[in-house]
Amino acid sequence: MERSLNEKCAVVGVFDHEEASKLAYFCLHALQHRGQEAAGISSGDGKQLYTIKDRGLVTRVFNEQKLATLQGRAAIGHTRYSTAGDDSILDAQPVFARYDLGEMSIVHNGNLTNAQEVRDALIAKGAIFQTFMDTENLIHLIAKSDEEKLLDRIVDAVKKIEGAYSLVFLSRSKMFAMRDPYGFRPLSLGRVGDGYVVASETCAFDLIGAEFVRDIEPGELLVFEKEKAPQSIRVFDPTPKHCIFEYVYFARPDSDVFGKNVYLMRKNMGVALAREKPVEADLIVPVPDGGVPAAIGYSQESGIPFEMAIMRNHYIGRTFIEPTQEMRDLKVKMKLSPIISMIKGKRVVVIDDSIVRGTTSRRIIRMLKDAGAAEVHMRISSPPTTDPCYYGVDTPDKDKLIAANMSSDEICKYIEADSLAYLSNTALLQSVGATESNYCTACFTGEYIV
Amino acid sequence: MERSLNEKCAVVGVFDHEEASKLAYFCLHALQHRGQEAAGISSGDGKQLYTIKDRGLVTRVFNEQKLATLQGRAAIGHTRYSTAGDDSILDAQPVFARYDLGEMSIVHNGNLTNAQEVRDALIAKGAIFQTFMDTENLIHLIAKSDEEKLLDRIVDAVKKIEGAYSLVFLSRSKMFAMRDPYGFRPLSLGRVGDGYVVASETCAFDLIGAEFVRDIEPGELLVFEKEKAPQSIRVFDPTPKHCIFEYVYFARPDSDVFGKNVYLMRKNMGVALAREKPVEADLIVPVPDGGVPAAIGYSQESGIPFEMAIMRNHYIGRTFIEPTQEMRDLKVKMKLSPIISMIKGKRVVVIDDSIVRGTTSRRIIRMLKDAGAAEVHMRISSPPTTDPCYYGVDTPDKDKLIAANMSSDEICKYIEADSLAYLSNTALLQSVGATESNYCTACFTGEYIV
Amino acid sequence: MERSLNEKCAVVGVFDHEEASKLAYFCLHALQHRGQEAAGISSGDGKQLYTIKDRGLVTRVFNEQKLATLQGRAAIGHTRYSTAGDDSILDAQPVFARYDLGEMSIVHNGNLTNAQEVRDALIAKGAIFQTFMDTENLIHLIAKSDEEKLLDRIVDAVKKIEGAYSLVFLSRSKMFAMRDPYGFRPLSLGRVGDGYVVASETCAFDLIGAEFVRDIEPGELLVFEKEKAPQSIRVFDPTPKHCIFEYVYFARPDSDVFGKNVYLMRKNMGVALAREKPVEADLIVPVPDGGVPAAIGYSQESGIPFEMAIMRNHYIGRTFIEPTQEMRDLKVKMKLSPIISMIKGKRVVVIDDSIVRGTTSRRIIRMLKDAGAAEVHMRISSPPTTDPCYYGVDTPDKDKLIAANMSSDEICKYIEADSLAYLSNTALLQSVGATESNYCTACFTGEYIV
Amino acid sequence: MERSLNEKCAVVGVFDHEEASKLAYFCLHALQHRGQEAAGISSGDGKQLYTIKDRGLVTRVFNEQKLATLQGRAAIGHTRYSTAGDDSILDAQPVFARYDLGEMSIVHNGNLTNAQEVRDALIAKGAIFQTFMDTENLIHLIAKSDEEKLLDRIVDAVKKIEGAYSLVFLSRSKMFAMRDPYGFRPLSLGRVGDGYVVASETCAFDLIGAEFVRDIEPGELLVFEKEKAPQSIRVFDPTPKHCIFEYVYFARPDSDVFGKNVYLMRKNMGVALAREKPVEADLIVPVPDGGVPAAIGYSQESGIPFEMAIMRNHYIGRTFIEPTQEMRDLKVKMKLSPIISMIKGKRVVVIDDSIVRGTTSRRIIRMLKDAGAAEVHMRISSPPTTDPCYYGVDTPDKDKLIAANMSSDEICKYIEADSLAYLSNTALLQSVGATESNYCTACFTGEYIV
Repeated sequence: MERSLNEKCAVVGVFDHEEASKLAYFCLHALQHRGQEAAGISSGDGKQLYTIKDRGLVTRVFNEQKLATLQGRAAIGHTRYSTAGDDSILDAQPVFARYDLGEMSIVHNGNLTNAQEVRDALIAKGAIFQTFMDTENLIHLIAKSDEEKLLDRIVDAVKKIEGAYSLVFLSRSKMFAMRDPYGFRPLSLGRVGDGYVVASETCAFDLIGAEFVRDIEPGELLVFEKEKAPQSIRVFDPTPKHCIFEYVYFARPDSDVFGKNVYLMRKNMGVALAREKPVEADLIVPVPDGGVPAAIGYSQESGIPFEMAIMRNHYIGRTFIEPTQEMRDLKVKMKLSPIISMIKGKRVVVIDDSIVRGTTSRRIIRMLKDAGAAEVHMRISSPPTTDPCYYGVDTPDKDKLIAANMSSDEICKYIEADSLAYLSNTALLQSVGATESNYCTACFTGEYIV
Repeated sequence: MERSLNEKCAVVGVFDHEEASKLAYFCLHALQHRGQEAAGISSGDGKQLYTIKDRGLVTRVFNEQKLATLQGRAAIGHTRYSTAGDDSILDAQPVFARYDLGEMSIVHNGNLTNAQEVRDALIAKGAIFQTFMDTENLIHLIAKSDEEKLLDRIVDAVKKIEGAYSLVFLSRSKMFAMRDPYGFRPLSLGRVGDGYVVASETCAFDLIGAEFVRDIEPGELLVFEKEKAPQSIRVFDPTPKHCIFEYVYFARPDSDVFGKNVYLMRKNMGVALAREKPVEADLIVPVPDGGVPAAIGYSQESGIPFEMAIMRNHYIGRTFIEPTQEMRDLKVKMKLSPIISMIKGKRVVVIDDSIVRGTTSRRIIRMLKDAGAAEVHMRISSPPTTDPCYYGVDTPDKDKLIAANMSSDEICKYIEADSLAYLSNTALLQSVGATESNYCTACFTGEYIV
Repeated sequence: MERSLNEKCAVVGVFDHEEASKLAYFCLHALQHRGQEAAGISSGDGKQLYTIKDRGLVTRVFNEQKLATLQGRAAIGHTRYSTAGDDSILDAQPVFARYDLGEMSIVHNGNLTNAQEVRDALIAKGAIFQTFMDTENLIHLIAKSDEEKLLDRIVDAVKKIEGAYSLVFLSRSKMFAMRDPYGFRPLSLGRVGDGYVVASETCAFDLIGAEFVRDIEPGELLVFEKEKAPQSIRVFDPTPKHCIFEYVYFARPDSDVFGKNVYLMRKNMGVALAREKPVEADLIVPVPDGGVPAAIGYSQESGIPFEMAIMRNHYIGRTFIEPTQEMRDLKVKMKLSPIISMIKGKRVVVIDDSIVRGTTSRRIIRMLKDAGAAEVHMRISSPPTTDPCYYGVDTPDKDKLIAANMSSDEICKYIEADSLAYLSNTALLQSVGATESNYCTACFTGEYIV
Repeated sequence: MERSLNEKCAVVGVFDHEEASKLAYFCLHALQHRGQEAAGISSGDGKQLYTIKDRGLVTRVFNEQKLATLQGRAAIGHTRYSTAGDDSILDAQPVFARYDLGEMSIVHNGNLTNAQEVRDALIAKGAIFQTFMDTENLIHLIAKSDEEKLLDRIVDAVKKIEGAYSLVFLSRSKMFAMRDPYGFRPLSLGRVGDGYVVASETCAFDLIGAEFVRDIEPGELLVFEKEKAPQSIRVFDPTPKHCIFEYVYFARPDSDVFGKNVYLMRKNMGVALAREKPVEADLIVPVPDGGVPAAIGYSQESGIPFEMAIMRNHYIGRTFIEPTQEMRDLKVKMKLSPIISMIKGKRVVVIDDSIVRGTTSRRIIRMLKDAGAAEVHMRISSPPTTDPCYYGVDTPDKDKLIAANMSSDEICKYIEADSLAYLSNTALLQSVGATESNYCTACFTGEYIV
């Protein structure tokens, strides 16, 4: 009955700034889309570390008073992705520990592929694990390393782990930021005031008024020390395998990720999709918000008018009330509503970023047909999602991925569309200026790297 | 120190349905955009009325258990618009009262222009007022009417009030729906199962699976009685003066209001704006969500590409944390973020539905300039808002309306735009197929009807 | 389906004090035992009245910030008793109204016996009732009175009502305090700083550092006006019928009520009970907290040692968890626990203030027998409660009062006691220095006055 | 800046019962007085362990639904004492860990005196500490022990720790309960249904209907295995040093602790105090609730009447509102009120269990003097508290203990009493039938054992 938590989330770090924990808070706020289950910040004032973490949104976990107790000029933070059914506060980050060199705190975005082996080996040597997070491995590896200095121990530790990781470490006096050799997850460096900031996405920099410097390189370890420029250590030779799904779905459109703007990449996918999978139709409609940029691209390329003919409701709420007999597809209708006047009698192309289980697509298409659409053509701005992600994106098991179990034709029938087409993997890579060799597309191809 | 509450909100009524209060709940959910401060439902089972109302969103006020206590086959409901600084639960609706004919409950959308005179007259005769809502007047007028039957009393009462009102009344056995002779606020009739539903907007019908029948006419009173078709009484000759602002900003895009679809009307305004106030530019960007349909219209008409280059953040939260020194325009940035890559070096046309105080427009334009926009041209899909509304839209006092106090040129300078242009009133009316004579445009012209 | 709320609660008024609403808050806190369902305060600053009221304990309804909005040098307050199943916020007090003389707010402790007749008459004349509180009658009577001045109207109004009332009225500039001619419910006058305070019980004065002046007399109306001593008006000749149950159970032991200390009166009852209903036993044990003073009296008079051999648990909480099979009488055991070592093998006299339904007594006796008591003798420091109260104490209907439906012998058998004895009505009156003529003992005798 | 948490609290364990976690819940409820900061339960179903823990009272942390997820026939639980300023959820118990033998969960009441040495040694060998609880040491010692079986490892581990501990361990199939060789903290064994229960105090048994079997012996380890009687292992020779403060203040009066009833022991102290420190007076008044049994004993021995002349308020609440100028000693008055009529003009003996800082005693005496007491004589049913506890009672540092810094005469003057006397250590020991050799009185004598 082994459980393991995929660590999909956002990480941030702020170094040498008067209001480090407040900046970390705002960065986490900008990165809230990467994880809504839990949030936490550790800060350090040179003498000790302070940690607050709890279940819930960033705005729920923190207030002015709590931020005030997170003293010091350095802070790291984390938001955690919602994993159904497990709301243990113990599995929130940062993970704090006392060890032979003092105190340390770690935040981690990604997923270790050899977590169980590492853990088993550590446990065999007498280690105890108090949480279900991969991150705990790292702390043990650092604590048990034979090296004397923390820097060397971090190097030692990351050499023993495999998989995806964008990490930020905080000790009493230093901060470290590290990215795995594949650069699966993004991690960028910025300047704020006289200090530095690292964050999973650049949208965090924009909110706090920080200036983007550069991405941390795959395999690079950055060391932040007082009154020094960040020191760069190439722990591994970079062999980039960036996660293409950051472009497809995960990252925020206003972020620059892996050196390119996410909105633009999504729009490019839409353009490519229009070329590759054209269809005669009266209007292009996105599934909001994910499908919007691709739909705009598709519209511009095809010349078919773009319309926001599916509305997103902002007042969803948590209380579930049983529907009455007259009410069909309540779940999707509470969230999305069709503009019937725009859809009635029209041939509609619906654009979404991906199909995971197929149930939502089916409900949306039904809703459009109920609204009188003459035809509904589904276009997906990425290839069929056939394989789960082991590097930190929250995809369901293979048996629940509709594209792993049905052909496109079968899916088309299941979702009751008049036609269904996906963007090819080749076109996807081209549209983001990538190659098979430097991007991970395992969720579409099943070709896992690590 | 007289206070009076403008009653801007949504009303619903369900008659002769097994799950009346549950349907009312879902209708209110669909109408949540018309009022987030408070919500309430009264139901009746032929013997007595039941009322639950409280501060907060519909999903907060009700749960399955509470709805179960709202028994009976008839229910009316209300959501109330947020008026800063007054959160008295006493001013939530429905307003319930016992009087000489038994019990009654009322919901009201609109604003009475002779409320104070009516109240003063009633008070002079010994009436007491326990709330600050105009609606209380109506209950008094009905209770004090010399007529014997409730129907006659309602007719008697509405003849004594002036202004905007879409009303639903519930007695122990009947329901009444009434619209003022001008038809300021919308009110539509639908069928659900074997029963009837009335609601401020048709989007409520779509959610509950009701079928739209027709709008209730200006000056019409509909009487709902068990096992009878609704009886129509023309209390006043209709002299339509529909609120144009429902099209400009207030109603939901997927609703049909005054017989026309709101999204389409907004898109038409964008088309008209492109014709009337063209500008050379590289892209059209809406202020989300209000400006989206008009921006699409503007783009299609002008041929300038549409881009969703301003993103809306869905995780705003309530805790306010003071920004740091580096952080500019936090308030708008927490809500909206620019896609810098799309904006940098570009000539941008920003489309919004209206400018009220000017402060938000100014912040948005600054944000776009900070993002590197070469030029920012503001285009507004309605005329300058120069006058407050006395018929139920929540506009600030005249001294706070920027267009009442500055010329367009001055506003352009204040908001730091490269150009600013509004849609003319004539073009606005044309674009929605209206005439001066059947629409109220007082907020743009100062020509009040009542 | 007429409902009417017995108004059992506490009232306070503070006049001409810098921090009037704060003092009202603390008074309500001291009077929390008289009502836990809802709390409210109205204040006045000479120009307008401000009201905050809500469900819950005083400490939940108010905080420093809310109290700050209750401006002015005068304030009245109210706590409301929990009535099962009705938690409507509308039925909280103070009741505020605008009427022809301006604004007024009222708080009321007691119960009107002619409320329905008065209401029916008012409704017949066109009045509307928005709550289920008797208090609303008073506002109508004042608003409709033909007198010109508020003072005269209050006199006019109270002449039309019957029953129990301790009232405090607040207008924009004055405060009025009134007690019914029978003086059913207590109401005392005190000085605080340069101002005045009235409160249901003197324990409120002790908390805020006010000095007790005197009780307001039955039938007396006190008028508080700026820079004047309170003016006393004898509206009715006093015909005292104080509620004996205030001594038996309702008031706080540290209060002086009707001129005498409650703890002392309860101890006297215990002394009288020991004389009238002696029993051979090893120890005297009170049911905490109500039975403590009488048990001390009984012990001192009988010479049988007093022991606190039933403990009261302070952490009860609201979540109810189903017990397991092994767990008997969970409900009483969560609240009360026996000191088994003190009880085992002993003949125990259990002292309680009254028996209402009998179920709690039965559970307590079972618990003591389970703890090994050789004999359990129940002694009640008041006569059998045979009749409901119509003057403001929350007793159940007659059919649920065990003493209305069983003889003492039958009750003794039902509660499984070895003996049961009550204090006689005569002894009760003697022990508090009262006579039949000046105290109401209707709950024990069925002889109602009004 | 080393921090360490004294682990003062309650522990429970239930083994081989259908509703193990529910019984653990009710036990914790009965033991809530031993810790209000946090609560937690781990259960096991033979396959895995389940843990829920959170801040707050037991009734807040758990509900029926959460208990249902704590599956299995074995459960251990913990409540944690409030330590000012540290509300980290990480420091709640049970402490759960995965290690080489699988999963384990531990709860601990007590305090290890060699915690820092043990931790430093463990850290030196590469261990990491994620909390500030001594208990984490134990888990490490067990995980790193060279023994093969958990039982032997527990024996191995406890041999390395010193101090006070009542521990319960849960593995996937077994439960272990262990008490330190001194038996500082209580731990009793009971039967419930066909299973077993261990708990810090017997009051837990009474609530759940369990039968007391015996105390677990100092130095004894009990092993609970399915379908076997508990196996007893004498890990250490018992050298009893029971905590006398459990009798003085900590335990619940209805519990039997160290073989004797707490209420009776407290009453005996009162009797001894009356003999040793008599005073001429009119009445004996306890400080509720702690002083009640001793006051009853003092009264019975001295013949001076006992009166509950200080009342405890049950509605304290958490919101703090600043008092007004007139209000003295608000903090104590919100909690305690004098019955002025009983006190005025009287010579009062106030009985309390101990004086820690002296500030509360001072406020109480002032309050009684304000109430008109002629004389106030303070009598304490234990010796001066001169030394902090290192074995699990939450006493402040020595510099804050008034008796460590002032003579009795000085304290008497400081608290403004007419006389002050403490029970001697000899009399205290006699009154509970103890000797210096088998009880720890270090808080009164400074003679620490370990």
